[in-house]
Amino acid sequence: MELIAALATPPGASALGVLRLSGDGARAAAEKLLRLKSAEGWLPRKALVAEALADGEVLDEVVAVYFPGPSTATGEDLLEITAHGSPLILRRLLAAAFAAGARPAAPGEFTQRGFLNGRLDLSQAEAVGDLIRARTDEARRRALRQLRGGLSDEIARLRRPLLELLVRLEAGLDHPEEDLPPLSRETAAKVCGEISRAARRLADTHRDGRLLHDGARLAIVGRPNAGKSSLLNALLGRDRAIVCPTPGTTRDTLEEPWEVGGAPALLIDTAGLGDAPEGPAEKAGMQRSLRALEGADLAILVVDRSKTPGPEDEEVHARIAETAARLGTPLLRVLNKCDLPPPRPEDAPWENGPLSVSALTGSGLDRLHGEISRGLALEKSKAEPILVASQRQAEALLGAAQALAEAEGAAAGTLDPALPWEDRTASGLRDGFRRLGDIVGEGTPEQVLHEIFSRFCIGK
Amino acid sequence: MELIAALATPPGASALGVLRLSGDGARAAAEKLLRLKSAEGWLPRKALVAEALADGEVLDEVVAVYFPGPSTATGEDLLEITAHGSPLILRRLLAAAFAAGARPAAPGEFTQRGFLNGRLDLSQAEAVGDLIRARTDEARRRALRQLRGGLSDEIARLRRPLLELLVRLEAGLDHPEEDLPPLSRETAAKVCGEISRAARRLADTHRDGRLLHDGARLAIVGRPNAGKSSLLNALLGRDRAIVCPTPGTTRDTLEEPWEVGGAPALLIDTAGLGDAPEGPAEKAGMQRSLRALEGADLAILVVDRSKTPGPEDEEVHARIAETAARLGTPLLRVLNKCDLPPPRPEDAPWENGPLSVSALTGSGLDRLHGEISRGLALEKSKAEPILVASQRQAEALLGAAQALAEAEGAAAGTLDPALPWEDRTASGLRDGFRRLGDIVGEGTPEQVLHEIFSRFCIGK
Repeated sequence: MELIAALATPPGASALGVLRLSGDGARAAAEKLLRLKSAEGWLPRKALVAEALADGEVLDEVVAVYFPGPSTATGEDLLEITAHGSPLILRRLLAAAFAAGARPAAPGEFTQRGFLNGRLDLSQAEAVGDLIRARTDEARRRALRQLRGGLSDEIARLRRPLLELLVRLEAGLDHPEEDLPPLSRETAAKVCGEISRAARRLADTHRDGRLLHDGARLAIVGRPNAGKSSLLNALLGRDRAIVCPTPGTTRDTLEEPWEVGGAPALLIDTAGLGDAPEGPAEKAGMQRSLRALEGADLAILVVDRSKTPGPEDEEVHARIAETAARLGTPLLRVLNKCDLPPPRPEDAPWENGPLSVSALTGSGLDRLHGEISRGLALEKSKAEPILVASQRQAEALLGAAQALAEAEGAAAGTLDPALPWEDRTASGLRDGFRRLGDIVGEGTPEQVLHEIFSRFCIGK
Repeated sequence: MELIAALATPPGASALGVLRLSGDGARAAAEKLLRLKSAEGWLPRKALVAEALADGEVLDEVVAVYFPGPSTATGEDLLEITAHGSPLILRRLLAAAFAAGARPAAPGEFTQRGFLNGRLDLSQAEAVGDLIRARTDEARRRALRQLRGGLSDEIARLRRPLLELLVRLEAGLDHPEEDLPPLSRETAAKVCGEISRAARRLADTHRDGRLLHDGARLAIVGRPNAGKSSLLNALLGRDRAIVCPTPGTTRDTLEEPWEVGGAPALLIDTAGLGDAPEGPAEKAGMQRSLRALEGADLAILVVDRSKTPGPEDEEVHARIAETAARLGTPLLRVLNKCDLPPPRPEDAPWENGPLSVSALTGSGLDRLHGEISRGLALEKSKAEPILVASQRQAEALLGAAQALAEAEGAAAGTLDPALPWEDRTASGLRDGFRRLGDIVGEGTPEQVLHEIFSRFCIGK
């Protein structure tokens, strides 16, 4: 395939940076881009010291490795050049690679080539992306298992009995004259039903798989000056957000990586809601707060317990609760500033509830951790051997479950009896078998492949 | 030397990340950290596929290269492990390396070992850091030249006649009875003077070398709402800073990389100066503005041309001009908002000067570019074959120039005649020779080495 090139390491000054080229002419490009320092020539898989050239001048002194295909990550000729980690050098080296005949690699295109050249199946290719994005050990472990064929094996295990059943059904349909062992409707229904339920169970792990890989989005919302930024800092254990006694200090929505119950999370601090915004900066801040609530897996409503709530407080709190209920987002109401004395007892409309914390002293934070973990229902997912990480895989599994449930119904005689049960069962079986094949990339259309790999980083 | 380990690529998710280990036991650590996938064993300099292990589990599938010393970058056994570019995997891999006996590498320690093991001299080692930090092609070219011995050769060229002279002088001093060819005071003075002046000329390139490598710091200062953030955005060509008609929108000092006349630069947007700050956030912002002015190579004072200046405006502008004059910082006064009509003519205290711009329409920005480049005097530095990038090198050169000027004076007979001229000249010569040797790291004390390499990134 066409020669592609991309940087494989993150931007930024560092000790080393790596440029990768893959495809036809990788070796010829190596000879244009590099002048080897020793006479031994392009020994395969050998780290060779070279001068990198661009526009006739020496750009840097580098180490290059040439991997001849097909037993490479991409299944084709591959060249890796390790230069000094200077963003400028790497940029110019990449430009020189383009001048030497490569075109820019699309996101995930190296992995996509590995898939197209049969080095890994689609569920394994997707696991490469998950592995890189893994932010907790549990997520990494599961991505590596999938990369090494964990999900592929499971799919193969589900498809094997379907194929057997299909062969027996189709043999009976195509050659009714032959004396084949009889296939009972009960057996057919049982197999279809079992695999359908197994596929659905696997699909059901997707929410947890997504949380494990992408992380839960935790929006901290509430009235101005309720102590949202202080709570963010307290949960993070460091002073990330500027905290000021002036209400409305936070304008931009702050997103900070966090970890809860073994899963990655994103703590999102938002601007206080409800007061008429003073200026355009505050107004934009509030719109962002509402958007954060909409995209959240869990919302933390911070209430200032030290003050008697006014009508506007109550209205805003009610609006937040309604929005969360409408979106199906779990809402944790947290009473903050419990280090301060409560307002006059006759004013206090809320008891000292189970989620009473002090962002200042740290009191109650452990309990809040536990409540967040429970709110996200993270515990039960840990026991599952396989968690389906991608939306696409979950949809394919649900599609397969649905088709196989129909095959089961046909075999059990509960559905439309106009066609022979064998035909209807075979049709559902074929569909279910095909949908399971989607997961490992059998006959996956190019558009779908494009969508999958476009979520990868460039250079992978 | 002790085994050290560090990540060599920047943090962040990417296709690949590299861990480096160097020192005694690199090979043994490789056997603990990695399980090779093929039976061919640890072939030197060969890219080998392996499983990376940590705490008894497989962490990732990696490619490893083992470079046996001493002909490596560090001059000792070196191991490079390329893993998937997952920050989590790389962090755990690093921890596994520590568990396998490595200690964390100090910043620049890989390069420092290369120096200590005689793979490069100190000026070359410093060039490695400059090469990585180079932000323009001119800076990269000069760093690469220095890495390949450009400055080292120049220093050797300066030292050669000094050593010859010293040998002749000392031979005359130690063995006055021998019949050596006479060394005239004129010849001695001439050599010392020439080399002294050459060393000083080289030292004088340091300011330009610093600007070329570190970049010029350009502070944009002025009254609130003069359009500082708009000017920053206009110069950058994109909306980096939030611009609001409300005065005092900018609080944090924004620093944005920019390029001017082939040199890297940092545009620094600051909070407006002078009004009584409303709250602690504004107050902190103003303190940062003053600090930015102090560290700047050039200050751009933005003045709102569309308004008649009040007494406070004039006071603040005068204070900025005084501060810049005191610090020796060139100050460019820029009249902004020239798209708006001027205030009533009878109020206008300043003419439509040479630096009248509109951040809104872009008018006058080209001229401003030119003035900034001129203000930094960047043009003349381009003709110099060598620019001294480091403060340390410049100081050593000045020290050498001074010592050799004294040697010249002694030889020419213009200084203290209490000692024979040969003794005094030899003493200055020895000192100058030694100071030049500092540049390439001859006898450099450990403390100085530590200071040099601590400015490197970790992993280099």
